[in-house]
Amino acid sequence: MIKVVILGAGNVASHLIDILLPKTDTQLIQVYARDITKITHLKNHVSITNNIELLKEADIYIIAVSDNAIGTISSKIKTKGLVVHTSGSVSINSLNNSGRKGIFYLLQSFSKDKKVDFDTIPFCLEAENKDDLKTLETLALSIGKKIYFINSEQRKHLHVAAVFVNNFVNHLYTIGNDICSKYDVPFEVLYPLIKETALKIQSLSPEDAQTGPAKRNDTKTIKNHLDLLTNKQQEIYTILTESIINGKKL
Amino acid sequence: MIKVVILGAGNVASHLIDILLPKTDTQLIQVYARDITKITHLKNHVSITNNIELLKEADIYIIAVSDNAIGTISSKIKTKGLVVHTSGSVSINSLNNSGRKGIFYLLQSFSKDKKVDFDTIPFCLEAENKDDLKTLETLALSIGKKIYFINSEQRKHLHVAAVFVNNFVNHLYTIGNDICSKYDVPFEVLYPLIKETALKIQSLSPEDAQTGPAKRNDTKTIKNHLDLLTNKQQEIYTILTESIINGKKL
Repeated sequence: MIKVVILGAGNVASHLIDILLPKTDTQLIQVYARDITKITHLKNHVSITNNIELLKEADIYIIAVSDNAIGTISSKIKTKGLVVHTSGSVSINSLNNSGRKGIFYLLQSFSKDKKVDFDTIPFCLEAENKDDLKTLETLALSIGKKIYFINSEQRKHLHVAAVFVNNFVNHLYTIGNDICSKYDVPFEVLYPLIKETALKIQSLSPEDAQTGPAKRNDTKTIKNHLDLLTNKQQEIYTILTESIINGKKL
Repeated sequence: MIKVVILGAGNVASHLIDILLPKTDTQLIQVYARDITKITHLKNHVSITNNIELLKEADIYIIAVSDNAIGTISSKIKTKGLVVHTSGSVSINSLNNSGRKGIFYLLQSFSKDKKVDFDTIPFCLEAENKDDLKTLETLALSIGKKIYFINSEQRKHLHVAAVFVNNFVNHLYTIGNDICSKYDVPFEVLYPLIKETALKIQSLSPEDAQTGPAKRNDTKTIKNHLDLLTNKQQEIYTILTESIINGKKL
């Protein structure tokens, strides 16, 4: 049985606590948060503390705090056991504990109040040795199903890729919404297209799935479109159109 | 009962023919294509022709051909009946028939071999008078469920919005895929995030759903990310990051 301590009280920490609390094969034995009021609701279910000197002995310490707090918190963990963090963009070397280190990165966008389907979430795991990696895999499989071994160099790039397909894609949705609002078109008209676009790339590579005036180099339609846009929208339209037209050339 | 003639043999035409053929409340009475070999497989089910002079009398003529052929084809329709096209980017005034005109725009990305769920597809309808609009609505409701009345001015902008949320979003998926391939990360790791991003905006406005380093104005992470990208990717990263940071200011 794997004994786990979670450090943190944010979205990722909360969802991990929720899924781990009822488990028997994996045992959540303690939750730490700097601000104890954020975890007092857990006190009847698990040991809680805001004193990092009082961490219990466990197999894995999961640090699920903001990126810039990972270094400081990890440096204060004096117990034995594997210390991992859950961040996509922080290297394994940023963990400052003196013992073993690893990564337990859940690649999904978490919202506090929305239930998470752990079966679909990719667990991106890294450790300094095979035994620790095996332990992390066992922990991940007790929660979810999709396991990937991703080292810090790969994870850094994966995190940038995620910015493109999540943050930037969402911003393009915002622009679409802005255009619709301006002309009294309900944005929901675009929901099926948005969904189809997101699902299509699971059966076709995004390069093969590309359609539209830029792909056809249809300069007449492109010009007509530009005439309909604000300056800022024109800039984005132009740079993405050029990028599609040029393909892998640049 | 509404009698329908379809002109065209592409993706939209094929899917409309498939859904209309078995209907009894709406009757597909003829299919026209310039190249008869593209529709000969239909000859046992419906009247076919490649001679536009031989069109039968119908209530609605649906022109589902490429944008730049709509003007020419419509000018050759001499029969009575409502003539509509299915394009998102062509104005109702581009129809050159002498009689009644309308639009029957299905806002979805169609692939030839992929089954279409017409119940989820938005039908964007336009006509010159209420009776014709009512007829188009009846036709649309015999095929699908989601009906919107969108005039040519609105549709023009809706089509640009669709370019942002479909063509450009897909290009960002391509960039994500490029980054993953380069570092041997399976692109499928990002599927759940891509799907979640696409579905989240159905319960939250895309503006409220925005997260990431640009939204937080986290200049350190932004700089780290830029260092990992090619020149072309940097350009796109920068312009989208600035757009998120500036919000509605520009």
